[in-house]
Amino acid sequence: MVPLGGLGEIGKNMMVLETEQDLIVIDAGLAFPGDDMPGVDVVIPDYTYLIERRQKLRGIFLTHGHEDHIGGIPYLLKEIQAPIYATRLTLGLVERKLEEDKRALPPRSRAIRPGERVKAGAFTVEPFLVNHSIPDSVGFAIRTPVGLFIHTGDFKFDQTPIDGRVADYQRLAAYGAEGVHVLMMDSTNAERPGVTGSERQVGEALANVFRQARGRILIASFASHLHRLQQVFDLAAQFKRRLAVIGRSMENAVEVAMKLGYLRDTGGVLTPAEKIGELAPERVVVLMTGSQGEPLSALARAATGELRKLELIPGDTVVIAANPIPGNEKLVQRTVDNLFRRGCQVVYGPHAGVHVSGHGSREELRLMLNLTRPRFFIPVHGEYRHLLHNAELARSVGIPDNHILIGENGSVFEVTASTARVRGKVAAGAVMVDGLGVGDVGNVVLRDRRQLAQDGVLIVAMVLSREQRKVVSGPDLITRGFVYMRESEDLLSEARERAVKALNGIDEQDITEWSTIKAAVRDALGKFLYERTGRRPVILPIVLEV
Amino acid sequence: MVPLGGLGEIGKNMMVLETEQDLIVIDAGLAFPGDDMPGVDVVIPDYTYLIERRQKLRGIFLTHGHEDHIGGIPYLLKEIQAPIYATRLTLGLVERKLEEDKRALPPRSRAIRPGERVKAGAFTVEPFLVNHSIPDSVGFAIRTPVGLFIHTGDFKFDQTPIDGRVADYQRLAAYGAEGVHVLMMDSTNAERPGVTGSERQVGEALANVFRQARGRILIASFASHLHRLQQVFDLAAQFKRRLAVIGRSMENAVEVAMKLGYLRDTGGVLTPAEKIGELAPERVVVLMTGSQGEPLSALARAATGELRKLELIPGDTVVIAANPIPGNEKLVQRTVDNLFRRGCQVVYGPHAGVHVSGHGSREELRLMLNLTRPRFFIPVHGEYRHLLHNAELARSVGIPDNHILIGENGSVFEVTASTARVRGKVAAGAVMVDGLGVGDVGNVVLRDRRQLAQDGVLIVAMVLSREQRKVVSGPDLITRGFVYMRESEDLLSEARERAVKALNGIDEQDITEWSTIKAAVRDALGKFLYERTGRRPVILPIVLEV
Repeated sequence: MVPLGGLGEIGKNMMVLETEQDLIVIDAGLAFPGDDMPGVDVVIPDYTYLIERRQKLRGIFLTHGHEDHIGGIPYLLKEIQAPIYATRLTLGLVERKLEEDKRALPPRSRAIRPGERVKAGAFTVEPFLVNHSIPDSVGFAIRTPVGLFIHTGDFKFDQTPIDGRVADYQRLAAYGAEGVHVLMMDSTNAERPGVTGSERQVGEALANVFRQARGRILIASFASHLHRLQQVFDLAAQFKRRLAVIGRSMENAVEVAMKLGYLRDTGGVLTPAEKIGELAPERVVVLMTGSQGEPLSALARAATGELRKLELIPGDTVVIAANPIPGNEKLVQRTVDNLFRRGCQVVYGPHAGVHVSGHGSREELRLMLNLTRPRFFIPVHGEYRHLLHNAELARSVGIPDNHILIGENGSVFEVTASTARVRGKVAAGAVMVDGLGVGDVGNVVLRDRRQLAQDGVLIVAMVLSREQRKVVSGPDLITRGFVYMRESEDLLSEARERAVKALNGIDEQDITEWSTIKAAVRDALGKFLYERTGRRPVILPIVLEV
Repeated sequence: MVPLGGLGEIGKNMMVLETEQDLIVIDAGLAFPGDDMPGVDVVIPDYTYLIERRQKLRGIFLTHGHEDHIGGIPYLLKEIQAPIYATRLTLGLVERKLEEDKRALPPRSRAIRPGERVKAGAFTVEPFLVNHSIPDSVGFAIRTPVGLFIHTGDFKFDQTPIDGRVADYQRLAAYGAEGVHVLMMDSTNAERPGVTGSERQVGEALANVFRQARGRILIASFASHLHRLQQVFDLAAQFKRRLAVIGRSMENAVEVAMKLGYLRDTGGVLTPAEKIGELAPERVVVLMTGSQGEPLSALARAATGELRKLELIPGDTVVIAANPIPGNEKLVQRTVDNLFRRGCQVVYGPHAGVHVSGHGSREELRLMLNLTRPRFFIPVHGEYRHLLHNAELARSVGIPDNHILIGENGSVFEVTASTARVRGKVAAGAVMVDGLGVGDVGNVVLRDRRQLAQDGVLIVAMVLSREQRKVVSGPDLITRGFVYMRESEDLLSEARERAVKALNGIDEQDITEWSTIKAAVRDALGKFLYERTGRRPVILPIVLEV
């Protein structure tokens, strides 16, 4: 087994299971870039390992429809072909994603149901139901030549799920009785004590909002959280409000989910966003994007007064039904502040009860361990500290230390019928996607971007006459992101003099050497500007010849 | 009264109190830049309002020694002169800060004690003791021609403070009995229910770490948190460990605090960092910087193996005795992951008990309101939502709505003996400091930096002969932060052809118009590159003439 993503990070989950003849992939996600990757849109795993083994590939199995599990599919399918197996909703989301590129699902792809068995070379894969923050989530039981493997996917145990479909305890217990050789388990919430709340608790908190709000209610949530959306639909019907949807991904999600039957408007509350202006405020609820404070989302734009479809007014109640993903805290806080500035009531934060996680906490992870009783344990899906905490949980239920395997992306887990160990490493880097470019942005480009962002750029352009052996025009100085050019004329004209002096200091026989000219100008200006401004702009000398 | 900073934000606190003849300033802090201010070092208030009134300025009063309260002093003193009044530790920290610039405290500056009265024109200022995360913190009771004003500064009520100096309830109650006209109160923790924990609880959690750790103990904390440092010194003595200090700001803090008597090494545990290699691991504790995961801090470098003074080994216990400041969450998490990778035990996070806030929670804010019983209330020190939550608390203890004044930076609070209201606004912007430049980076420069960071820069340089009416050299293309130049030769040579074509399309009579040339090149390349890469680098056409 080789994880190509998702170990030592949150995001771009991808696990390879491989025998000599056959290979299957579990999940093909993407990750969102950190602050250290300016301009990058998304990050996907390096698929080289798979491409080199494409002949062995028997299938791609997807646990659920979140971007960190299916977002890499369009990129992956440009490199390899294999049937995709996923539950109906997940497959529908992948199909829609491919349609945007005018492409279709690979041949022999199909929807699978919990309990069904899919043969893929040496592997027989059986999905089992789990609870998570998107419907139709499954884990996989995988029969291999060396024994039964279980991959939980992302999961929690919700005892009172909205759709009534509790995780399949019976089947998990049966696997445990049969004998699980290797368990791979979600580590996301391995730091959190206790048990994650049921989605139904969110419904109760939202019902309180509906009871108290006198004006409009606006609810921002993850678009894919269809159970939460269903609860809002049901509450709208119960409290006699019409429901509008604003924000592209929310509109998409509602449309797909209704088409596939995962969202039901039994009360007939859905109404076009254009109509809400005609309704009394206490008859309106809006589902919208922006729970992460993303600057271009519907909620963030409404909060700054830039969303034409929806002008916020005092008396509106805004519910942010999500926790900020690490890194988004300040964006969410800024949105909350802006909402308060418009006179809205804002329901948000850990004490409001309007969000529960989709991932099991420590006691649920222990329960999964005790249900399946694995011989070997591999924590997956998490930053390194999450993997360690998950390992600690395994230890606490009696799995011996040398049966717990901690690896990171690219680690090779070698499993036989009697042993399991980490043995070596393969290339499993991150490939950055920027615009249409996949992998054409790398560390050098990012380093340049970071440096440009710090202190800007200064260009020093000049014309060199090879005949006259001297600079015949320039040096001209142009800056961006360094200082206000208009207010820094003195500084720049002095800098120009330094450049001229540096050029005059070059021997006549060296003057036709561009590299000499460039180095002289760069050194002289770098030193001068640092002394005068304390900054180090990127200095780009440009020599043209006539 | 005019707040020049700290209202609607966390940071750069500064409040102006003013009569017709006299003016005093409370605090002169700085703020740290957000992600939207690349390259900016610190942010200070716009001092214009003060500079225009410098004749009236009678004194600068500082509540405590944190950067968001004293960090602006070196910049402010370049513009205006006035005596500084602060408690001994605070004044010592300001003095040290000025010494770094080879400057001294302004004439007539002096240390003041709680209870002492300082006359400053029409104002009589009396500091009173509060608890906070740095010793010698005070609020101010200010007698003015229209009544008694109270400014709490940053505060909490610690019933069991480390130095035994509890906040001065008697004096606060006496002010309340006397009649407080206006209360300005810290809003930082107005979102948090209950009561903030005592610093002594942190000592108990740290004692547990000392009891359990078998190897070295490394503790990262804010350098200015001298009570916490004192507890570590005391625990070192109790558990017979030697204590070393690593990281410049921690070394400075320990030195200053010991000199001024705010930190006592009664057990004689302090030892040079160079000596810890000679001691048994179970005899060592290290105090270090890096509790926010700052990439250049001692802890972050130790976690990546780059700190020569301290190589981490399995068996080390690392305590992160701080909460991440919003925006620093991912840096702290990365550090924790790296520490685990080195095999360290890591004690961190909300459940570890190794940190308490320095700001009072909701019940403490209510207590302050009930002790002082103000007629008018102005929440200060906080983002807008914190100010609103604080106002809500005032309402909950019976202050009428029209006696609660919410303003932001630059709001003019007009207070008479019987009324108080917000009346108009003055300029109170943010001045960015980048290197040696104060205010020479503004929105245009920042916008350029953000754009450069997104997609980099493409420079198109050419030489124009005015005589021949044509381009005689170039266009040459140079990029940084856009694509790998070496791997994108085809793209760039095609781009060059587009530029040439654009130039050829210009009429001969227009060719000497630089603006025409630049626009043609920028349009042609912008369109071409977006089609081909989906990116929008900054395109800078440069024309030189011969």
